[in-house]
Order: sequence, then C-alpha cells, then structure tokens
Amino acid sequence: MTQPLGGYQNEIYLHGLADQVPPCTTDATRLADSAREILEPGPFWYVEGGAGSGATMRANREAFDKWRIVPRMLRDAAARDVSTTVLGAQLPAPVLLAPIGVQSIVHADGELATARAASELGVPMVLSTASSNTIEDVAKANGTGPRWFQLYWPNDPDLCISLINRAAKAGFSTLVVTLDTWSLAWRPNDLDHSYLPFLRGIGTAIPFSDPVFRSGLADTPENDTPMAVLKWVQTFTGSDRNWEALPFLREHWDGPIVLKGIQHVDDARRAADAGMDGIVVSNHGGRQVDGAIASLDALPAIANAVGDRLEVLFDSGVRTGADVFKAIALGAKAVLIGRPFVWGLAHAGEAGVRHVVRSILAEFDLTVALSGYRSVAELTPDALARGC
Amino acid sequence: MTQPLGGYQNEIYLHGLADQVPPCTTDATRLADSAREILEPGPFWYVEGGAGSGATMRANREAFDKWRIVPRMLRDAAARDVSTTVLGAQLPAPVLLAPIGVQSIVHADGELATARAASELGVPMVLSTASSNTIEDVAKANGTGPRWFQLYWPNDPDLCISLINRAAKAGFSTLVVTLDTWSLAWRPNDLDHSYLPFLRGIGTAIPFSDPVFRSGLADTPENDTPMAVLKWVQTFTGSDRNWEALPFLREHWDGPIVLKGIQHVDDARRAADAGMDGIVVSNHGGRQVDGAIASLDALPAIANAVGDRLEVLFDSGVRTGADVFKAIALGAKAVLIGRPFVWGLAHAGEAGVRHVVRSILAEFDLTVALSGYRSVAELTPDALARGC
Amino acid sequence: MTQPLGGYQNEIYLHGLADQVPPCTTDATRLADSAREILEPGPFWYVEGGAGSGATMRANREAFDKWRIVPRMLRDAAARDVSTTVLGAQLPAPVLLAPIGVQSIVHADGELATARAASELGVPMVLSTASSNTIEDVAKANGTGPRWFQLYWPNDPDLCISLINRAAKAGFSTLVVTLDTWSLAWRPNDLDHSYLPFLRGIGTAIPFSDPVFRSGLADTPENDTPMAVLKWVQTFTGSDRNWEALPFLREHWDGPIVLKGIQHVDDARRAADAGMDGIVVSNHGGRQVDGAIASLDALPAIANAVGDRLEVLFDSGVRTGADVFKAIALGAKAVLIGRPFVWGLAHAGEAGVRHVVRSILAEFDLTVALSGYRSVAELTPDALARGC
Amino acid sequence: MTQPLGGYQNEIYLHGLADQVPPCTTDATRLADSAREILEPGPFWYVEGGAGSGATMRANREAFDKWRIVPRMLRDAAARDVSTTVLGAQLPAPVLLAPIGVQSIVHADGELATARAASELGVPMVLSTASSNTIEDVAKANGTGPRWFQLYWPNDPDLCISLINRAAKAGFSTLVVTLDTWSLAWRPNDLDHSYLPFLRGIGTAIPFSDPVFRSGLADTPENDTPMAVLKWVQTFTGSDRNWEALPFLREHWDGPIVLKGIQHVDDARRAADAGMDGIVVSNHGGRQVDGAIASLDALPAIANAVGDRLEVLFDSGVRTGADVFKAIALGAKAVLIGRPFVWGLAHAGEAGVRHVVRSILAEFDLTVALSGYRSVAELTPDALARGC
Repeated sequence: MTQPLGGYQNEIYLHGLADQVPPCTTDATRLADSAREILEPGPFWYVEGGAGSGATMRANREAFDKWRIVPRMLRDAAARDVSTTVLGAQLPAPVLLAPIGVQSIVHADGELATARAASELGVPMVLSTASSNTIEDVAKANGTGPRWFQLYWPNDPDLCISLINRAAKAGFSTLVVTLDTWSLAWRPNDLDHSYLPFLRGIGTAIPFSDPVFRSGLADTPENDTPMAVLKWVQTFTGSDRNWEALPFLREHWDGPIVLKGIQHVDDARRAADAGMDGIVVSNHGGRQVDGAIASLDALPAIANAVGDRLEVLFDSGVRTGADVFKAIALGAKAVLIGRPFVWGLAHAGEAGVRHVVRSILAEFDLTVALSGYRSVAELTPDALARGC
Repeated sequence: MTQPLGGYQNEIYLHGLADQVPPCTTDATRLADSAREILEPGPFWYVEGGAGSGATMRANREAFDKWRIVPRMLRDAAARDVSTTVLGAQLPAPVLLAPIGVQSIVHADGELATARAASELGVPMVLSTASSNTIEDVAKANGTGPRWFQLYWPNDPDLCISLINRAAKAGFSTLVVTLDTWSLAWRPNDLDHSYLPFLRGIGTAIPFSDPVFRSGLADTPENDTPMAVLKWVQTFTGSDRNWEALPFLREHWDGPIVLKGIQHVDDARRAADAGMDGIVVSNHGGRQVDGAIASLDALPAIANAVGDRLEVLFDSGVRTGADVFKAIALGAKAVLIGRPFVWGLAHAGEAGVRHVVRSILAEFDLTVALSGYRSVAELTPDALARGC
Repeated sequence: MTQPLGGYQNEIYLHGLADQVPPCTTDATRLADSAREILEPGPFWYVEGGAGSGATMRANREAFDKWRIVPRMLRDAAARDVSTTVLGAQLPAPVLLAPIGVQSIVHADGELATARAASELGVPMVLSTASSNTIEDVAKANGTGPRWFQLYWPNDPDLCISLINRAAKAGFSTLVVTLDTWSLAWRPNDLDHSYLPFLRGIGTAIPFSDPVFRSGLADTPENDTPMAVLKWVQTFTGSDRNWEALPFLREHWDGPIVLKGIQHVDDARRAADAGMDGIVVSNHGGRQVDGAIASLDALPAIANAVGDRLEVLFDSGVRTGADVFKAIALGAKAVLIGRPFVWGLAHAGEAGVRHVVRSILAEFDLTVALSGYRSVAELTPDALARGC
Repeated sequence: MTQPLGGYQNEIYLHGLADQVPPCTTDATRLADSAREILEPGPFWYVEGGAGSGATMRANREAFDKWRIVPRMLRDAAARDVSTTVLGAQLPAPVLLAPIGVQSIVHADGELATARAASELGVPMVLSTASSNTIEDVAKANGTGPRWFQLYWPNDPDLCISLINRAAKAGFSTLVVTLDTWSLAWRPNDLDHSYLPFLRGIGTAIPFSDPVFRSGLADTPENDTPMAVLKWVQTFTGSDRNWEALPFLREHWDGPIVLKGIQHVDDARRAADAGMDGIVVSNHGGRQVDGAIASLDALPAIANAVGDRLEVLFDSGVRTGADVFKAIALGAKAVLIGRPFVWGLAHAGEAGVRHVVRSILAEFDLTVALSGYRSVAELTPDALARGC
C-alpha cells in the first residue's frame, strides 16, 4: 500500500499551487485556455486542434457524460490501492502518457522533460516516433522509469528494424504500433497556419539520428536539410499495410506488442487472432477521421469481445480522474492521457507535466475512494449508470 | 390551515423587493451571479464550485428538466396546505436548510443569522459540524425553532460522543450523518485559490470548543493555532467506516438518525436494514464525486425501494419551488436547499436567508396550488410526465 | 378561394418592410429583441418573462423542434385555401389573437389598436378581462370583426354575469374561460421590478367600468383609487373553483364556451363531459406553472382523446407559420398567438399588429403550400416526422 | 488510379494557403464567417440565410452528428480510388456543384468563375436557371467540363422547351428539375433587407436572353426593365404542377432527368414510377420549408426504397468530406455542395471555388482512406454507427 495519490491535494492546499507549477491550474479543462495564452497559434493549434470540423473531438468528450458513477457508501475505502499491472508492468494507477510527438514545439525541454516527470511518478511514457529527441536521449532522461516505444511504421523495413532495435536496446519494454496515421488527416487549423512541424525538421530526431535513414543522405548535414525532410515524408506517409504485415514486427520485437487506433470490434478480434498483446481503443484524439465514433462509445463492445484475450487500453478524450474511472469501469485496463500533460509541459516543463499527471492521478484516486472502491479490479460496469 | 406561503409574492409586489432584502432577486438562478459580485473569489467559489469538471453539478440541474409537471384544472386548490411532517417534526413545507459549513465566509453573522431566519420561518436548520459557530451559540440563536445536527463523523469516538451529546443537550432533535465526505474531493476552484477555510481556522468552532478535542491541546490558544488545525485535519479526514459502525451512533443518540449521501438503491436498502430512520439521497451538491449520477436521477428507484421503510429526503440541485415539487412527486419526503440560502445570507444576513427561503416556499406553494393539488401527500409520480 | 395570404411577402419585397412597420422585422424570433430596445424593463419583462426559471417557456419552444414537416412534391398546391371554421366562425387561417391583457403598457393605443388590426384581417381577437380598454370600446374599434371574450372568473357571481352580459351585448361571440390563473404565479422578472400593472390601475378598465363592481365603491373616483385596486385583487385572485361551477356559465352565456389552460388528458375529457364547446391546450405561455409540460407535448394525446367531441385549440410557444402548421397537424383546430403580436403593437400600434399577424399568416400559407397541401383539413400527423 | 485527391493538403503545407486563395480557410465551417466580413448584408444573407427561423438549416447540420464513422485498420487503403459514375458521367469523387443562382451577387465573375473551376476539376456543375450568366456563356466557360442544367420550370411551355433546347445544344447532359421552389418561401433575412436579386434584374440572364421570353417584350430594352422583371415573376412563380406534367419534359429532353427536392419516400417511389433517372433528396438547404425534416434524416429510407430503381443524389447540409462520406454510406450516389463553394467564389472567384471544392474532395478522399475503404462502392451503412 502506497501513500494515496489523492494526497496531492493536501500538498496544494498547504503550499499553494504556485509551488507546484506557477501559472497553471488543477482543472484539466482549463489547461488549454491557459496554454493558449502562452503559445504561438501554430504550436497551440497543432496540439489542441483535431481533424476536420472537430466533431469527433467533441464526441469524445460528450461520450463521457453518457455514463455516471454511482458512488457507494460505508465501504471502508480509505484502505485503497489503485495500482495495477499492465502488460507486465506495475503502475501506480491505470494511466500512461500517450505518444505525443514534437513536444519541443511547446517547451524547449520537449520529451526529455516528460521523460523525467514520468520516471519520477513511475508512470509509463510512450515515446512517439515523432519525438523531438532521440530514443537514446529520452531513455537517459527517463532513467529507471517504465517506458514504451510508439512506432510510426516506416516504409523501409530496415529502418523499422533499426528503430525498434534501438528502442529495445534503450530499455523500452513494449511496442505500440499506431495504425490510424499512415497518412495525415485533414486538419484545418494546421492547414490554415501552414504549420506542420515535420516540414521544419521538428519531430524528426529519431529517424534523422538513425544510421539506416541516414545511409541514403550520405553527404548532407544531418538534421535540417530539405532532402532529409523529403525522405522523412516519403518514409512515414502515403503507404498502408494489412494484417499480414504483423508477423514482421513480432519477428523483430521480443516484448509485448500493442496495436493503437482500434475502433471496430472486428478489428479488435483480428488483433487478438494475430496474437497481439494489447490494443488501444483510440481515434487519435479526434485528429484523424473527423466524424468518427467517439472512442468511449466504441470501448464497451470491444472490451467485452476481446478483453479476455488481450489487454484493452483506451485513449481519446480523457481529461479528468473521473474520466479514467469511467473508461476503466467500461473495460479498459488502462488509459493514455495526451493533451493535458502537453499543456503542463507548455507551462512549466518537467514540473508542469508532473503537476498535471499528479492532478489526474489524485482525482482518480479520490474518485475511486469516494465512490466506495478499493482497487482498480473492482471497477466494472456495475459502478456506472447511463447518464441520459 | 395557515396563510398560504405564496402570499409572499403579494408582499413583494406591494412593498418592493428592497423592503425584503435590498440588493437581491427572487430568481434563485440569478442569486449566484449577484453573490459573485460582492464576494471574494475564494469564498464565492468555495460555495458555488463543485468537484472536478462540474459535470455532476450540471447533471443535477439537467435532471430536473427531464420531468414536467402536468397541471390539473378546476380542483379548488385555494384551500391547500403544504405543511408536512418529517421524522416527527411539523414543517410549513417539505423544505429544510442543508448543512452548509463555514457560513461566516460569506457573511459575518454566519450560522447565527441562518439560525434566526430558520427559526422565524419554522423551517428546520441542519447545523453542520463545520459551522463557524458553536452548537450552543447556534441553538441559542435558533431559539424554539426546529433544528437538526449534521455529523462529520470524527475518528475519535470520545469526541463523537461529546459532539452529539452537546447537540442533544442543545435541543437538536435529529442526527444527520454525512457519509460521502470522509475525504475531501478534488475541487479545482478551491485548489487553484488554495482556499480551504478549515486551514485558516474557519469552520472549526464546534470541535475547537469541545473539551474532548481540546484535551490534547492543553496549553495552546484555543481557536487558531496550526496545531489545532492539524489535529482537526487528522480528526475529520482520511478515514472511512463500514456499515458495522452504525450501532455506535444508535447507542449514543436517542433521536432519529438520517444517513446523508445515499445514491445507490442497495445502500438505501442497507440503511433500512440497519434501522436508520431516514436517508438523504444526495451527491453533496456535486461537490464530491464528479461524474456521479444526478441526485434526482437516483431518487425514484430509491424511493420506490425503501420509501415505506424509512423517510427519504433529497438534496443536490434544488433551486426553485418547481424543483421541490418534482422531488416530492418522485418520492422525497422533503428536500434540503443549500447554495440558494447561502447567497441570501451573503447579500443580507438573516434577512437574506429569510427572503430566499420564503421565495422558494412561496413558489412551491403556488406551484402546488396552480397544479391543482392541495397537499404534499397528493404529489406522486402521476403529477409528472417525462420531459424528453 | 381568397388571394393567398403568402402574397404578403411580395408586398414587402416590392415596397420594403418600412412601408409596413418601420423599425420591425419579419422574423418572429427577433421581435422580442427589437421590442426590448424600445420598452422600459417593467413592461418588456411583464410580457416577455414567464414563471420561475423559465423552464416551461423554453420547453414550449423546444417541443416544436421534436417534429419535422415532410414536404410533398408535385401536388398542385397553388390552388390552396387555408381558411377554416372554428366554433362556427369563418377564419382566414387557423389563427386567433390570444387574450393578452394590459396592452397599453407597450403602446398607448392598447387593445384598441389590436382590435382594429384584427378586424381588418378577419382574425378573431380574444379580449382579455384584464384589458386596458372597456369591452364596449374594444367592440367599437373591432367593428364587424370576429371577437371572443376571455373571462377571468371573478369571485362575485353578479359581476361575472354583468361582465359576460356586457360582452354578449357588445358582439363577442364566444366565451373563453381561463382556468389556470386564479392566482398569479411566481414571476421573478415582475417581482424583481415590483411591476404588476393591475396595482397601478392598468388592466382594470373592464371591471372598473362595471356597475356591479362599482356598486361597492359608491363615492370613490372611478378608476384609480387604492380601494378599487384592492377590491380588484380580492375579486380576481385567491379563489378557485371546481367542475361543478361550469353550469353557472352555461346558464348565463348563450354562445360557445371554451376552457383555456387544459394540459391533462383527463381534464380534457371532463371538459367534454361537461358539454364545453372547446378547450385551449395551453400553459399560459409558460407564465403560470414553471416546470409544466410543454404545451405541444400535451397536445397530441388530448386531441386524440377528445378531438371528436369538442374543438381543440392550442397556444403557448407559437412564433412562426411552421409552428402553426405543426400544431394543426398534431390535432389543433386553431392556434392562438400571443407575444409576437404584442411586440408588433409595441413597435407600431395597429400597423405593427397587422404586420406581425400577416407575417405569421403568410408564412403558414406558404408552409402549407410548399409542403404540398391545399387545405387545413389535410394537415394530419402524417405530414410530420419525429425530429429526434 | 488517379493521384489521390487528398494530396491537396501537401500542396497547402508546402506552399501555404495564400498560394491557393489568399484570405480564406480550409475549414468549411469558417467559410461563412470570413465571407460575412467581405460582403454586404443583402448578398451575404441571401446565400447564408434560410427559411423562417432557420430550424431546418440547423437540423440539416445536426443530422450528420447522429451518425459516426467506424474506421477500419490495416486494410491497405493507400491504393484507393474515390471516383464514381453518376448518370453515365465519370466523376473524380461523388460530388457535384449544386445549382446556385445569382452568383454574381458575391463575385463579379459569377457563374463563369464557377464553370471554369468545375471544368478544371472535372466536377459537374449544375447550372441554375437563375444564373447571372447565360446558358451559352457558362457552357463556353465550362469548356469540356461535365455540366448539368437545373430547371426552374416556367409557366410558359414554349419557354420551357426553348430553355432546355438551349441547354442541350450547349452541351448540358442532364436535366435537374427543382420541384420545391415553385413559390419562394418566407425568408426573414431577405425580407428584412428587402433584398431579392431577381427584382433587381440579377439572376435573370437565362430567360432574358431567350427569344421566347423576349417575344412578349418586343420593344423594351432587353435586360433591366421593370416590365421584364414583372414577366419574370409571372413566369417562374405562383404556379404548381403535378406528376402528370413529367412526360412533357421527357418528350423534350433526351438525356437523364433528375427530380430535385424529394423528401418523402412515397414521392421517391412516384419518381421511379414516372421513369425518372434520378432524384435529389434535398430540402433546398433549409431555404424553403422551415421546420422540414433534415435532409439526411430523410435519406436512408428513400435510398432503401428506390436506390435500385434510380440514382439517389443528396444535398442540404454538406460542409465537409466527412459529411460526403456519411451521405454516401447512407445510400446517396453523390452529393451536391452549395454554400461552401459560393463562399470560395466570394473570396477569390474561380480560385476560391477551386480551393473550396478541392478541400472537400481532399477531405473526403482522406476520410475514405483513413477509414479503411478503397472505393465509393464500399461505403455502406455498415461503415457507420449511430452517434447518439
């Protein structure tokens, strides 16, 4: 039994929020507003914006309101423990940091700050292939923290092998393969700003530092040439794969493999049939198919269908500890949080990430406790009622 | 048959609102707006704010819109009487004042003003353990008015016995045991302001004035030392109990006992099985579990299940006389109002509380009458239709 | 076959709106906004405001959105005729002017202007007992126009007889008895402004000019003494009746009798059992029981239950010609419009009333035609689909 | 296999939006806001406004939110082709330009600019009878592009024959007969501005240039006399037809005939029975019957009933590529877009139309691809889930 995560609120009441992260808030829904004030429109909207009209982003949030927690009383929930085990890793709570790329566009410390904060909290960081920092540098910053590697599957098999070998060597335990972004979606905010970080050489550190990628760019400077960017585009977009491609990954990766971007129950079944260790039910935070089903709306049927065959993770729309509670109760083994921790990073680097993650963990812990539960395992659909 | 409570509107039309309470309004939904203008953000948001993202606060209000009154005509409802009996007490209407602590943060007269207004109207005041004033002082201000005592159940059994003995001795007839707040929830407004009244020694009058509590603080000044506050925190938070703890209360309290914070029908059944005299279906005004079921959504099934075994009270979201009507029609024996009377207090002390409570009673009385009913007993689900 | 009412749009396109009513609009939903700019808060809110929190006012409007017209094509609807017969009177369209009292608070010409506009259009005016002008003066202004008399049923039977005898003598053909306002509801806007026109002697012309009413006020000036106002209050509020009272009216009124304020299907059945000629399904425009069922939500079951026994009229929430279409399709024989024509009055007196009514009639006519119907009789529930 | 339409986003990222159309946006929902800033209220609201209260316009948009795409993963959708065949014409995507009249009110180049942009993209333009330019001039500007002719069916049969003969001669392949606008609806925005372009001689080029129309106006100047306008009004409004009138068109038109404005499944069946080649499920963008069923709500039953007998097209409410996807999945063979391309025209003439259409085609192509589909034929209701 660890010190309850909810104790973070006492720290804030006693010492003030400014001690944690000066200009910020404990309200995840206000984080974006305050971040907007300190960032340029390009970077702000790259993170905050979604695909198309934003319909799926809104749906992601509204889906949480369809479910209500029914708290139970007199259940002695002070003696609780919200830690859990996900794909063999022990977590303080069923929360991971989603693979967000190009974090340096909101704070100079980029993924290194996130890696340090995650390590301190024992929360797994999922490092994006589109990181601002190299696999090796992030691993170093992450130290003994749990870390997973997210793969944007390159068109070059040798590069793919090289990337995941580097990740394995650098201590990343689990491979998260993003399926839903083999082409970038229509994102009006970014288009209107003509803001795509990769074209400016941001978020390319991992391939640019890779010998396989570099081999075709022998005599050019390493990180910023237009030719490298062009090769990056050719390598990471415009292609697609089918289910037959998965054995290639299994062959070259010894640890657990998780498929990210599953929204249809039949795809979840195919993932299980393919021997995957986990999936992330996700619509990429509403950043890919505008008009797509809310991720939480897709979760229950998928968890019900394959929850006993692989580990079902969830993301897209999680903002608060109550959201974490609901997703877990609906069948997720753990959730990934995204934009909130990026806003923490924008405000105060490592301290900001730490503050935001601690806030969500604290609210989750308090929600579990005040709802009368003592462990993550107790959270089932019985803990919820339909909201409307 | 008393003078109809609705007659208050005539007083206002004839003499103006300013005669009642100068800067205020008869519209319960505008009360918060006007209070915001006269209070500091810390106190204002401590009262107005809720847990987390405010989802349950909004749900509490929206739930009332799901039900619509179907008025009946030509029923001779002029000769009506909306008085009722709750746990043996005769009330002018099925309305009580909810146990709100730290009332001095909005007006210097604090709970004493509320006690006077309640007494004058014959409406039971439920005194919070977190009162700004002592049990004895509030009893004195309340005079011959009906009064109940709300217990935040301290970790120290001796203190618990001392508190409820003091309450009994001071003429509090009924014990209301709050179950849902053995730990404070995540409240972003308060955290962002680092505003927790108790840490400033506000709302601690009842334990600080208690000999049992004081016994461990022999040589320190009574009311404001950090050590007393620390002891207060240790005494009132961080613990929990289960259903086996209830006989202890029964043993030490002779009057009716009401459990506050019930939201699940099984917990309501356990309360009845445990021989409790009443429950309050409540989510603490949306201040504890964000994402919790709207209190009114939880009411019908609970009232149906246990309404014949104990008295089912209701709070969380009541703002108008029509709200009172709907909650009663859905099975509540009476409702507790909270934030509205605190805003009345903020505006004009005792006169403000009196005005707000009279307004809600008047609107309830008129709603009953104009809907064609003549007594509280006639209000059943047949008086309602689903709104959508 | 008359000239289609929809032709009014051609007049406006050709001559401009200013020719009709200078500062106004053809959009019924914008009328209130523009009226607000030219009226004092007291009068404006007396008309625009409703009971309590305004929930029923909003519900009245939202109920229309639950139904959608399904237009039909190629039905030769140019040769249409939307006239209808209601309680023996031939109307150009199934629209009447609702009994709105105290019209002089928005325009000096008051009910006289309305009477003239109604007469010119052949639309029945329902004169309120709370008119600013006497029965006789309104009849004179109305000339040969169809006119009905609305009764606030006084406590004094002799006065009642005198009032309806005067109405009959002045050519009012139908008696509309308002059941839902034997006591005024809780209306925060008016309470906050302490604005009740009657207490200022406005809207009392009909009883003040009545010999029976005056008989108890022998030596006082006729129209403005506090004693007369007090007697007015005692005469028109605070009492109630039951279904046994109806034969009294039948005995003293030879024409059709309509009960206004029916919202429950059982009350509609009782009205039919009592031999009434019609009912108005109405919640008094959301001005009486806040939280009451939307009037349109109540209509279908009532029309289905008693539509073949008496004439079912409808009001509360009608703002546009499409609203008229939907109410008729759901079983109303005709609808009463209220606030919109009062805003027309506020803007431009008689010309303003005429403009607003012509606008609604024109939009109704065009809606019928463009939906492929040629008569009011063709409008049935088959013309609609559920909107959500 | 053509170059994927989605490649347009790369152009924008590489060269900036300003290269395409300086002051504009890629977000179809922001187009109206930016257009409002550069247009006079009359023209702006003529395009943006709808009938009555705008209820059907809002419903058109909300209906899309009721359906959610369920993307599929690992389906090798890079090798996709969203081209389709509609009534014998090969289209790059299932999108046409709706017949919008009087385009010169937003840009001096009017329909000529649209014709050029459409031609370049290979997207069929449906030319309105109410065009600012003649049939012949538009055909010339459209060059080898696919083009259809929309008919406002004049009361004069000889004029009708002349118009469609001119269209056939000018290379318009398909006749689209608008059924829902034989009379103009009540449009408050236009009425309040007294803005009807036709009365100013705008949108009359096609009849004014017709010898049959001119024959009755022998000695008057051709294009702008009040007498010509009067004749225009008499010719195009105030009449109606029934299903027996259709053979007349078939007799005089050799190509496919499409009926536009179908909203009821029985009318769709009659269209099929009458041997029509296609229908457009449409409520005229919410511009005719306010309160009418959302066009997308009407689509599934109609497509199911007659989709195998004629080609079902769709319009009213399409703003994004995701909207196109949903309409196709619910049974439409293709959709017509309206207001968005007019806003493109307003901003930058031909370049603006091209930009907006390319944006919608690109988003559609990316939506298909990222949802895991490779052709339009694969889009069926199975690709969707109910949104709420």
